Amino acid sequence: MKHLYIIGIGSGNPEHMTVQAINALNKVDVVFVPSKGEAKAKLADVRKDICTRYINAVGVKIIDYAVSSRDTFERSYTQSVDAWHAGIASTYEHLLIESIPDSGTAAFLVWGDPGLYDSTIRIIERVKQRGHVAFDYSVIPGITSIQALTASHRIPLNLVGKSVQITTGRRLAESFPGLADSAVVMLDGEQAFAKINDPDAYIYWGAYVGTSDEILIAGRLADVSNEIIATRAAARARHGWIMDIYLLRKGHDFEE
Amino acid sequence: MKHLYIIGIGSGNPEHMTVQAINALNKVDVVFVPSKGEAKAKLADVRKDICTRYINAVGVKIIDYAVSSRDTFERSYTQSVDAWHAGIASTYEHLLIESIPDSGTAAFLVWGDPGLYDSTIRIIERVKQRGHVAFDYSVIPGITSIQALTASHRIPLNLVGKSVQITTGRRLAESFPGLADSAVVMLDGEQAFAKINDPDAYIYWGAYVGTSDEILIAGRLADVSNEIIATRAAARARHGWIMDIYLLRKGHDFEE
Repeated sequence: MKHLYIIGIGSGNPEHMTVQAINALNKVDVVFVPSKGEAKAKLADVRKDICTRYINAVGVKIIDYAVSSRDTFERSYTQSVDAWHAGIASTYEHLLIESIPDSGTAAFLVWGDPGLYDSTIRIIERVKQRGHVAFDYSVIPGITSIQALTASHRIPLNLVGKSVQITTGRRLAESFPGLADSAVVMLDGEQAFAKINDPDAYIYWGAYVGTSDEILIAGRLADVSNEIIATRAAARARHGWIMDIYLLRKGHDFEE
Repeated sequence: MKHLYIIGIGSGNPEHMTVQAINALNKVDVVFVPSKGEAKAKLADVRKDICTRYINAVGVKIIDYAVSSRDTFERSYTQSVDAWHAGIASTYEHLLIESIPDSGTAAFLVWGDPGLYDSTIRIIERVKQRGHVAFDYSVIPGITSIQALTASHRIPLNLVGKSVQITTGRRLAESFPGLADSAVVMLDGEQAFAKINDPDAYIYWGAYVGTSDEILIAGRLADVSNEIIATRAAARARHGWIMDIYLLRKGHDFEE
């Protein structure tokens, strides 16, 4: 049976690769790299850099494939994601049938960790359920941008014995301020932090965390909010893309 | 100035080590390993195995140190942690002064990631604030047991576009069921899941995740709760210790 490795490659620093990920990469016949059609060509470059740097096995093929973009026209968020995933599942099915030799193995390289705000696992499950190609798969964990963020800021993610909310820009207002005294926000295209009006909130922000382009800003939200917005806009214009993440926090360790 | 690396080593599988962690480990003069006094001798063995496996540099010294245990007598949880950290800070200060050569470097090896339910960073900050020894430090991210759990179960941590709560057994009842449709529970000595009475809740449980002793159980909470309690007790008796973690979930992808 064909076997697929869904490999977390970390969040932009090629040295985030684990020994487990490198070993898996050297076992496969094919590595699938999304590039044509992917706006963020830089991300494809990171994946290719990882292949060049870590694959010692001979004859591993790198195959580019195009990823369609999400069509949001007259659709709710979940409808648009559902339809988008269905399209990617067809792409994956085609790759699995056509590009992996019989009883061969292949790898998908996933930014960060395959479990966190990434849909490769759920799309692969769709392909499995369609039943047009027999295969099994394994998931290999990777360093997320959450860990890269807290490592670069040299802070613990949680307060002592307290909870942490991982959320999106769209949902931030539901959880902070309020239940969560620590909220990590990923996938925030709208700078939702700017709408939080809380004099006690602190923010630990990072863009391109873990890479040589890393930018970090930390401070009281009310003091640094505008600086983050300006820095983010300038970095986005300079690079043509941005990946950022932040931790919002209220309170301190050892408060009951 | 002396320099310290606080290195995340992953959650039990030596192949969780990243290239960044291995490179740091090969730059240091000394590796500090908590062993004497640590009940979980197995954890010290994993750290020593990692040193043996990955350190190629010559002359790196491994230094054992004892960690006191937390005294909970007539103290609240936060008071007991605060006093415990103060004691460990004294131990670390002594190690930094006595066991690192001038301008030398050392490593602390932290289970999982230094940012998640680990206090090495905040204790090192205490040592810095005491001001008895001049040093700087870096943090290197590691694979957490959350990522090991979801990789082994081959599931995404979050539902599409939804939030995730990371919490402790003590706080589970505050967040699930309720706001969080996905809650990861760490540090649960009391099997708090057994008190959740929700016919729609699913659990993805794992012990020793990522290691050769890994045990996984998944299913509807009401159906597998007793099996997890029995399996956990038996494994704990057999190994003399246990590290487990679970994800509780309600709902499905693509529900609005």
